[in-house]
Amino acid sequence: MNLILLEQNDFTGQDEVVLKGRRYQHMTEILKVSTGQALRVGLINGKTGQGRVLEATAKHVRMSVVFTDAPSPKIDATVILALPRPPVLKRVLASVAAMGVRHLIILQTRRVEKSYWQSPALEPMALKEQLLLGLEQAGDTVLPEIWLRKRFKPFVEDELDNMIEGRLAFVAHPEGSAPCPCNVKKPFVVAIGPEGGFIPYEIEALQKKGFQCVSLGCRPLRVEPAIHMLLGRLIKI
Amino acid sequence: MNLILLEQNDFTGQDEVVLKGRRYQHMTEILKVSTGQALRVGLINGKTGQGRVLEATAKHVRMSVVFTDAPSPKIDATVILALPRPPVLKRVLASVAAMGVRHLIILQTRRVEKSYWQSPALEPMALKEQLLLGLEQAGDTVLPEIWLRKRFKPFVEDELDNMIEGRLAFVAHPEGSAPCPCNVKKPFVVAIGPEGGFIPYEIEALQKKGFQCVSLGCRPLRVEPAIHMLLGRLIKI
Repeated sequence: MNLILLEQNDFTGQDEVVLKGRRYQHMTEILKVSTGQALRVGLINGKTGQGRVLEATAKHVRMSVVFTDAPSPKIDATVILALPRPPVLKRVLASVAAMGVRHLIILQTRRVEKSYWQSPALEPMALKEQLLLGLEQAGDTVLPEIWLRKRFKPFVEDELDNMIEGRLAFVAHPEGSAPCPCNVKKPFVVAIGPEGGFIPYEIEALQKKGFQCVSLGCRPLRVEPAIHMLLGRLIKI
Repeated sequence: MNLILLEQNDFTGQDEVVLKGRRYQHMTEILKVSTGQALRVGLINGKTGQGRVLEATAKHVRMSVVFTDAPSPKIDATVILALPRPPVLKRVLASVAAMGVRHLIILQTRRVEKSYWQSPALEPMALKEQLLLGLEQAGDTVLPEIWLRKRFKPFVEDELDNMIEGRLAFVAHPEGSAPCPCNVKKPFVVAIGPEGGFIPYEIEALQKKGFQCVSLGCRPLRVEPAIHMLLGRLIKI
């Protein structure tokens, strides 16, 4: 946690917050804060700044806060991800938020296990919690936008044109593809299939919309390394 | 599991194996194999080929096997990794093996929690199990070489010169660094610090040996995305 993220309902006065729960535990057990200590803070979807501990009791931490700086800049990237197993989804949400992705679409594809959609990991509060962990890691405050799309075809036919307008669009697909490019200079959209990949119909549907197949080499990878490798290459550093 | 990895003591005849335990469970519960079914197999540190199920009982699977092909090619990369938290280490071992890294050094640095070295995840059988999961994912058979080094200074002073001879050497370090390059054309060594980073003394020691500091951008990342991003960029695809 490189930043303590604050919500409007943490405020007890204009410049004062009281924290309990997960952030309180982190501050007392990991950071072992004491009165007077300064910490980096951020307002969700707002600025970052400094908090100063006024009081750390057995139940809460009270801080004065001041917001002065813009959060870490986002990268202009959209990730379309076939819904992975829920424990993998949780980690991917945090890492995609940490990497600065603006927009994440979680998508049903043929080879996604339908029962995954019943997971509590997809409930709005659970999604938000993982995104916050990623933002806290990266010193960012701005929540990525998340869409859940349980039907592949209507998403591709009705929503994809707008989404890729003015952007480069890539789909990770090992067969017959060019190597994934590096440091792309335009905003981009990248689609990543499930374990086992997209089916040919899905690849063709994406290609018809203008997606370019890109490869990460001949070794089949799990979703997490694949998504990090793709973003690692595509992002202009 | 894109490949069933076999050890010498699985063999009950020259071309016949009997599998129990984890691989048996995977074959019966996930792949739901039946008599006559063909599967991709590999001999640890050897060739890949085809297995054919002769018998699937409540206790074991018996297969005939033939080895014909070379495993997925390795990449000529060495990763030096500050020991992370044990659950992260497990996943990193699998993904580093899956990505084709030849050699992994797990290193003590100042900001590594010393108690991590007591973890059962560092026992030889536990290390091997995670590496096998990665190899099975990637269709590889050749175990990466793993070194555990509990002292930073003797490792750097006595072993690093030989290790980086004829290779490019990089250390992930956000401050004042050049962006991490892409598609490097020579064998390389890459060092990744713990959460919180290397301390200045450690960075200087690596720089003196010829390591170049490289950045992944201004957002502090966790070890797993960082290692995948670094390898994703550095590997020539």
